Amino acid sequence: MNLFFHSPLTTYHSPLKMIIARILGTVVSTQKDERLHGKKLLIVKPINLDGSDQSGYVVAVDTVGAGFHEKVLVVGGSSARLAEGNKDMPVDSAIVGVIDSFEVNEKE
Amino acid sequence: MNLFFHSPLTTYHSPLKMIIARILGTVVSTQKDERLHGKKLLIVKPINLDGSDQSGYVVAVDTVGAGFHEKVLVVGGSSARLAEGNKDMPVDSAIVGVIDSFEVNEKE
Amino acid sequence: MNLFFHSPLTTYHSPLKMIIARILGTVVSTQKDERLHGKKLLIVKPINLDGSDQSGYVVAVDTVGAGFHEKVLVVGGSSARLAEGNKDMPVDSAIVGVIDSFEVNEKE
Amino acid sequence: MNLFFHSPLTTYHSPLKMIIARILGTVVSTQKDERLHGKKLLIVKPINLDGSDQSGYVVAVDTVGAGFHEKVLVVGGSSARLAEGNKDMPVDSAIVGVIDSFEVNEKE
Amino acid sequence: MNLFFHSPLTTYHSPLKMIIARILGTVVSTQKDERLHGKKLLIVKPINLDGSDQSGYVVAVDTVGAGFHEKVLVVGGSSARLAEGNKDMPVDSAIVGVIDSFEVNEKE
Repeated sequence: MNLFFHSPLTTYHSPLKMIIARILGTVVSTQKDERLHGKKLLIVKPINLDGSDQSGYVVAVDTVGAGFHEKVLVVGGSSARLAEGNKDMPVDSAIVGVIDSFEVNEKE
Repeated sequence: MNLFFHSPLTTYHSPLKMIIARILGTVVSTQKDERLHGKKLLIVKPINLDGSDQSGYVVAVDTVGAGFHEKVLVVGGSSARLAEGNKDMPVDSAIVGVIDSFEVNEKE
Repeated sequence: MNLFFHSPLTTYHSPLKMIIARILGTVVSTQKDERLHGKKLLIVKPINLDGSDQSGYVVAVDTVGAGFHEKVLVVGGSSARLAEGNKDMPVDSAIVGVIDSFEVNEKE
Repeated sequence: MNLFFHSPLTTYHSPLKMIIARILGTVVSTQKDERLHGKKLLIVKPINLDGSDQSGYVVAVDTVGAGFHEKVLVVGGSSARLAEGNKDMPVDSAIVGVIDSFEVNEKE
Repeated sequence: MNLFFHSPLTTYHSPLKMIIARILGTVVSTQKDERLHGKKLLIVKPINLDGSDQSGYVVAVDTVGAGFHEKVLVVGGSSARLAEGNKDMPVDSAIVGVIDSFEVNEKE
């Protein structure tokens, strides 16, 4: 049962939004808001600090030319529209950085 | 018990919002904010990447003429008001694209 | 145990916000932000598509003259301030429509 | 086990935000954004409609001179900045009213 | 099982956002939105009022020169852009204060 519960129950749904995710796939949409034309819609998977996946996914607009399976910084809400090239776009998630590394110091 | 718990516990409530959903139904409202008149209010169901439904639903304004049971891209929050025709409208979810397909490459 | 878990675990906390709720009660507040004076603060309960209640509640400003126990459309976030009469008000949920009916076509 | 699970599982995390809470404590911060100087930062605990506590807490700026353990109306997001005196402040929760009473009529 | 479930199930995902967290680590990103250059991206862990960690994490921009493992006040959403130096930045979480102490008076 632990295994069954582990993933969803330890997934954190942050109310504060900015998280680390990995690029998982792409979304193809022809019939869409005209402001979305030419935008790269990627499926990203939030990850935990141990590198494991969180459940679920988010569709985010890539604004930094991130590569497949790279770890990225994803912002949500109105902030996503402040990412390069997203002004006034109807999007609420955007990739704003490629993460080289992140370092965590657990309680000493 | 697994079956009972499976659906709700594996549903992800993204803090980053932009997700894939399918159109499930319609909402009829006569007495409403005047800016909502003539707007198509659809009930959409968020889906997982394996195509299965997530629990729950969202009411979203259709801005792209999406068809019944089509998979759509839904945005939330203030971004919903930037969708075509939603300027200054009291709505916080909007369908901004019809999804032709999406591709996911799980960890190799 | 199923009964005990059923309600909360099958409640969906949409990240996309616009949902259907029923009016459950009222909030009385004398000492409040002056912009809230004269506003009707209602307690609404989000409902599932089968008409059952979700757990919890939200306090929303009524902007359409909704009646007791009516089903209403509730928006959240900055969109709530775009509802009739809510401009620049410190509120983040508003009732923007009374729902006559909603129709859901489950997977055929 | 019921007791153990009861509180967190029956807590509702509203996507629509405006809720009732009680004032639980205070936060002291000297080194902070200059716009926060002179602001009263309170720890509030969301409550259920039966008056019981929800789990967790929120830090909110008091804008109405609420008293200890009083029930208050708390708004979140950008709406918090529209509360008296919060213009352009980096805060996302604010107490906008002291609640005298609230009345709930369950399904008849 | 209690131990296993305790942390995630008692974690509160506030819809009202402003919370207390401790600084846990740093994120290094070279390829990012140009407005993020020179900004300190920290990994913070929300904490409960008893000082224990909540599960998960958030990436936040430090705007007050917070020190390692210090307790900080974190805001989310558009409010994060109102923190010192964050104007028009594509970020949705920011550290806006270092917390000297916080005091909680449980129900007497």
